[in-house]
Amino acid sequence: MRSAQDGFERACANFLSGSAADFIKHAHPMKGISRAMEYALATGGKRIRPCLVYGANYSVANAELTADALPSVACAIELIHTYSLIHDDLPAMDDDDMRRGKPSLHKAYDEATAILVGDGLQTRAFELLADAPDLSAEQKVRMIKVLAQAAGMEGMVGGQYVDIQAVDSDMMLDELRAMHRMKTGALIRASLALGGIAAGATNVQLAALDAYGDHIGLAFQVVDDILDVESNSETLGKTQGKDAEANKPTYVKLLGLDGAKAEAQRLLQAALDALEMFGGSADQLRELARYIVERDR
Amino acid sequence: MRSAQDGFERACANFLSGSAADFIKHAHPMKGISRAMEYALATGGKRIRPCLVYGANYSVANAELTADALPSVACAIELIHTYSLIHDDLPAMDDDDMRRGKPSLHKAYDEATAILVGDGLQTRAFELLADAPDLSAEQKVRMIKVLAQAAGMEGMVGGQYVDIQAVDSDMMLDELRAMHRMKTGALIRASLALGGIAAGATNVQLAALDAYGDHIGLAFQVVDDILDVESNSETLGKTQGKDAEANKPTYVKLLGLDGAKAEAQRLLQAALDALEMFGGSADQLRELARYIVERDR
Repeated sequence: MRSAQDGFERACANFLSGSAADFIKHAHPMKGISRAMEYALATGGKRIRPCLVYGANYSVANAELTADALPSVACAIELIHTYSLIHDDLPAMDDDDMRRGKPSLHKAYDEATAILVGDGLQTRAFELLADAPDLSAEQKVRMIKVLAQAAGMEGMVGGQYVDIQAVDSDMMLDELRAMHRMKTGALIRASLALGGIAAGATNVQLAALDAYGDHIGLAFQVVDDILDVESNSETLGKTQGKDAEANKPTYVKLLGLDGAKAEAQRLLQAALDALEMFGGSADQLRELARYIVERDR
Repeated sequence: MRSAQDGFERACANFLSGSAADFIKHAHPMKGISRAMEYALATGGKRIRPCLVYGANYSVANAELTADALPSVACAIELIHTYSLIHDDLPAMDDDDMRRGKPSLHKAYDEATAILVGDGLQTRAFELLADAPDLSAEQKVRMIKVLAQAAGMEGMVGGQYVDIQAVDSDMMLDELRAMHRMKTGALIRASLALGGIAAGATNVQLAALDAYGDHIGLAFQVVDDILDVESNSETLGKTQGKDAEANKPTYVKLLGLDGAKAEAQRLLQAALDALEMFGGSADQLRELARYIVERDR
């Protein structure tokens, strides 16, 4: 019986070669700062967003993953995600000393380097899209617009701002969902949109991918909150119990542990339902959805 | 006799209406963070980069400044510049409490807000270019690539990293120039390139604009170093004597005050020479070059 993790690894085998070589190849080296950048990128992480790019592309194209643009597109998304983690970990933000099982970038180097590496990774993401091979200028412009809207004030950055303001506040379930739709959901949905656009998806196909992304985005955060309570720091690769300790609103607090687990299962089913039109070509995305809900870190 | 400052204001009258309304109109408001963003943008500054966009466009097109894209393009550049100032002022970076005569953003709000506003302004810059009216997709992709290269690790961000590392170091004149070409020169040259691309400039025209930009970029920094010694905090709108106090390398230290002034004049003349091919249509850029060298803040 294969585990969800195995499925995930196989689904992404074309992209993940066990190292971060693809990411580093696409990131400009520059004297001292390049070591810090490589440090941030090479620590790995789950690479869920690049896998979503590939999975969405495959769902729409129903063909082998041969588009020359996909590594650039997937890397651009991961650079945005990595930059956001670097800045989120800063003392003035979430103040987390561990990330992906290693010291956060500002601990391994210093705060100034962490700020600048984050800034530079964001810039490089847009450069990668502008420079991606095998895409029309119209596709690139559309992708850059989608990514910028997802990453900016009305998406990821705005969500992080709301999250920081939310410490010690009594958030309702709807407000918590709205915050996570911005903070993590927007970039997940952008990953799917970019993979779809690269395959020439119709609006109906893009809408289905977007619905899938909305559900797994929320599921991802619900599971994060469950793991923050149930797992330990070593498995998580970041400080366990941090959100509860910081008195942040979580799904576990609002729904209880059993309620949160039921919510994760409900969201998983809704995500799978959204993929129906794609038939077997969406099996990678189905594996990913199951992995997101059943992971232990 | 009109002053350079007057010439500058007139040259930019189409863009600068005395308020930051144009910038704010193009920047997404979002709950609490929008006030902080408006604060950062509304404090003004010299708006040199937007004026370079307009000036380059006019030099090439030799026509009235009617292109619908120019406000978006000029605003995109200014957003990148403003984000870089916000992050540079942070305690972990240059640690400056004053900017443009008012408290820096992290003093007026807090560090987390300043980090996120900076992040969001950078994102918005690329969104603005992707969304600019009246440009072909090819023009937009080219502009995004030029801006990203200028703003990233091999340009502005890399230059700031080198600058931070340079405290207490003995830089030679060539190293100081190389650092400033990255830190401030790259974005100045990108402003000119974007204005030129919007007007359909030839490679020869773009090369002339680039040479002009290289000279005024260096001149700008030489004059900054002179003002850091000669002016006072009230006129500057930022803390006077800060660079000398921080034991950073400056042109005044390397060339002496008179030597630095002579260097600024030499660079001004070289910048004016580079504009020769454009005839009278480059008068705005000539005024700007004189303003940069003769300004008192």
